[in-house]
Amino acid sequence: MPSNASLIEPKAMSSVSYTLYYGTFIHTPSLGDLEICFNTLVGVTAAGDIDFIHKNYRPEEHDYQTAVQFFINNRKNRHFDYVDYSQDPTKFFMPGFIDTHIHASQFPNIGIGLDCPLLDWLNDYTFPLENKFTDSNDEKLKFAKNVYSKVIQKTLTNGTTCASYFTTIDPHTTNLFAELLLEIGQRGFVGKVCMDHNDTYHDYEESFEDCVDSMNKIIERMAQLNPAEETLVKPIITPRFAPVCSRKMLKWLGKLSVTQDLPIQTHISENKKEIELVHDMFPDCEDYATVYDKHNLLNSQTILAHAIHLTKKERKMIREKKCSISHCPTSNTFISSGEAPIKQYLYNDKINVSLGTDVSGGFDSSILGIIKHCILVSHHLAMKTGRQGDKLTIIDAIYMATQGGAKAVGMPDKLGSFELGKKFDVQLIDLDSKESNVDTFEWQLPTQHEGDHKKRTKKMEDLLGKWIFSGDDRNCVKVWCNGRLVINKMHYSRDDRWVMVEKDF
Amino acid sequence: MPSNASLIEPKAMSSVSYTLYYGTFIHTPSLGDLEICFNTLVGVTAAGDIDFIHKNYRPEEHDYQTAVQFFINNRKNRHFDYVDYSQDPTKFFMPGFIDTHIHASQFPNIGIGLDCPLLDWLNDYTFPLENKFTDSNDEKLKFAKNVYSKVIQKTLTNGTTCASYFTTIDPHTTNLFAELLLEIGQRGFVGKVCMDHNDTYHDYEESFEDCVDSMNKIIERMAQLNPAEETLVKPIITPRFAPVCSRKMLKWLGKLSVTQDLPIQTHISENKKEIELVHDMFPDCEDYATVYDKHNLLNSQTILAHAIHLTKKERKMIREKKCSISHCPTSNTFISSGEAPIKQYLYNDKINVSLGTDVSGGFDSSILGIIKHCILVSHHLAMKTGRQGDKLTIIDAIYMATQGGAKAVGMPDKLGSFELGKKFDVQLIDLDSKESNVDTFEWQLPTQHEGDHKKRTKKMEDLLGKWIFSGDDRNCVKVWCNGRLVINKMHYSRDDRWVMVEKDF
Repeated sequence: MPSNASLIEPKAMSSVSYTLYYGTFIHTPSLGDLEICFNTLVGVTAAGDIDFIHKNYRPEEHDYQTAVQFFINNRKNRHFDYVDYSQDPTKFFMPGFIDTHIHASQFPNIGIGLDCPLLDWLNDYTFPLENKFTDSNDEKLKFAKNVYSKVIQKTLTNGTTCASYFTTIDPHTTNLFAELLLEIGQRGFVGKVCMDHNDTYHDYEESFEDCVDSMNKIIERMAQLNPAEETLVKPIITPRFAPVCSRKMLKWLGKLSVTQDLPIQTHISENKKEIELVHDMFPDCEDYATVYDKHNLLNSQTILAHAIHLTKKERKMIREKKCSISHCPTSNTFISSGEAPIKQYLYNDKINVSLGTDVSGGFDSSILGIIKHCILVSHHLAMKTGRQGDKLTIIDAIYMATQGGAKAVGMPDKLGSFELGKKFDVQLIDLDSKESNVDTFEWQLPTQHEGDHKKRTKKMEDLLGKWIFSGDDRNCVKVWCNGRLVINKMHYSRDDRWVMVEKDF
Repeated sequence: MPSNASLIEPKAMSSVSYTLYYGTFIHTPSLGDLEICFNTLVGVTAAGDIDFIHKNYRPEEHDYQTAVQFFINNRKNRHFDYVDYSQDPTKFFMPGFIDTHIHASQFPNIGIGLDCPLLDWLNDYTFPLENKFTDSNDEKLKFAKNVYSKVIQKTLTNGTTCASYFTTIDPHTTNLFAELLLEIGQRGFVGKVCMDHNDTYHDYEESFEDCVDSMNKIIERMAQLNPAEETLVKPIITPRFAPVCSRKMLKWLGKLSVTQDLPIQTHISENKKEIELVHDMFPDCEDYATVYDKHNLLNSQTILAHAIHLTKKERKMIREKKCSISHCPTSNTFISSGEAPIKQYLYNDKINVSLGTDVSGGFDSSILGIIKHCILVSHHLAMKTGRQGDKLTIIDAIYMATQGGAKAVGMPDKLGSFELGKKFDVQLIDLDSKESNVDTFEWQLPTQHEGDHKKRTKKMEDLLGKWIFSGDDRNCVKVWCNGRLVINKMHYSRDDRWVMVEKDF
């Protein structure tokens, strides 16, 4: 271990045909804009790219034949698959979710540690667990493989097609994690945690030299692992957060980001005591954001997690530097960090905001759960401030979970919505799946033959509410990454409407 | 329709043997007190009553034989079943949940109406749906049967063994609802909604005379339906809330409660505009609670839902009258009603508080979800007030979901915990069930052979956190009501450890 790069066959690079998808496609192409596209035909190349989108395609005759005919007439492509869910009002395609803040190594601690604020929580629960990944003997690798496989499987089965992960300080298991991403079929940014200055828990830190050495190992290994033609795994520079990093390390990491053209992720302003600590440790910096800025860590490829208690000046700096925020509402409530004013960040400060599960400060590894919770947390904020305008809508939340996430991970032209040239990183939602927790009634379904388009759209919007507030992983029945089907829960379903053909016309 | 009482065989009255249960039992016998009883043997009579509890029973030899031997030696009972989950650290018995506020008729609207405050939400979404249950032609009865069956099945499969329901103003479908409770096997208090004064939505109200007539029909029918020896279904007097009730009706309902010895449920102080409305409509009453008190509606059998914005004086009155509160955190956040200071109600004001899903103001029909959300909402309250003491613990939440609920529905000696003479209304939780959303790792399990009892208990407490924050209906694998197994999801599970014997020694 780690295994030979040549032995790994990325699941999201497997051989597939050109595929036509026909059905309801829902996405948020821009902030505040929800688009529900019924009867839409989407062509996806064998490389996983969206080739064409034909909205509101309503053949008079049998769907399959005419959709195929459309394709043949227009493209002359003779070999393809065809996938049709257009007849089923409870099924729709959504862009895969993008989780921009998740600690893979903390997955076993989900639900534990409710009673602690951030700094105690780190020492009592988090550092001891992360430390178990260090020392790469066989047993530790087995331990890491067990935890890491589970977290990738879990998030992927919840529709997360891309995530930006924190692992631990250990380089060997971090490389193992990247291999597992490829094997299981999720796009991922892999952040070896960098921290050379852990005053409160000395057992879990590295020297500056070890950090440099580890980062080089990871960058080298991931260059071998990632397929030349596609971004599936990529290192992300990850100073844990200012209090556990020396200035020397911060400076080196800032430089590394430039020389290697690598993205950056870290934490900022999660907890008031943490902010005080940063002020004490960096008295020459006016605020928390300045600490990172001084070390060249703020740029358009930077993800700042939490960002709850920002000053006006910090917000301005974050917008000017084009950084993205990762909002982690479950975590912020669980360990009582605060309620971030996300609506203001989005609409007043014009900052890009995405969503993070923040496992295991956050207890929910599903971005669908985070969509729900970010709305609820915004209601609490609005009740506190008295400003109705602080409330996030369903549309805001879906945007942050998809297109906002795509911007945050630096792939706004490749992920996050249905557009020509974007990757087909997609989930199929089925509100009527086996043992679904969503209950729909016949009169609530937006049927094919509903004459009134407005009425059909309103019904679909209500179903989105049902999905967000009562749905879960059981409703995410298929997941594609890079155009490849990486999750399929419909194998044994009686009402499986999957149609696959490969014909030579 | 309604069907003949003699044709209904209540599922929770079916014939069963005396049964011994052996395993981990977890409950909150009193406020603030969590008891984790490993290796506990519980005997349950054929009438569904807990006959004996033998805690920490650790036979030297094979569990089954010695447990059986214990029973034979001590009881001389020769026919019995034996159920043993003692070897499995991921399984434990909990008292069934008690949902003290749920609108059965609103079940289809779950997840819809996020954008509205209470009074608009009622007019736009709730009244039109409830009105669909009126006029008992065949189609309406079919509609009602579909919705009502689903809500009972859904709550029961989530471990709710008893609930206090609002139906609609319609008596026929309300009686149908009671029949369905018996058929499906859930204990229920059935509240025909009383409202003769709906100023904002005249289509949905009844006359005072109709209300009297309907209530008499329901009381009569439920007396026929409920088995003589057991409280399975019972009418509960339900003035919807003061703004839609005439003084004449309120007075009559208060009197009816006394003459028929029936419990009462209603709403109070959910929303600030609602409180203003009540002040305007009842200028002679100092506050909202006084409106109900003046009409003899506050007593030890009264459940007051929401109770968010109570004055000190109202709290005092509620305590003195020994009413219970039903706290509905998901609803209060969803439609932005407020954050009720529950910790203060419980510990300072000494008011009994229980939990309610408040479907469909609340989006979660599972009391497990309400346990999670009441903790989270209390964190938001604590962040608002700056008082750490406003935070609810896991123990508080479980207490409200079980024993607090038992007190609220007037059955503190029969439900809510494991005690001699109480009914065996119980759920079996399995954290490792098929497709469980809870992830446990081997080192986290409190094993049988763990020498250190404190360590084993701490591990179990952490597992409770995992269950509450990542569990769902999939973890509730069996449910008993009145000692009868009414839900069983383990039929086809490979790791089904259910052992059932009936032997003649």
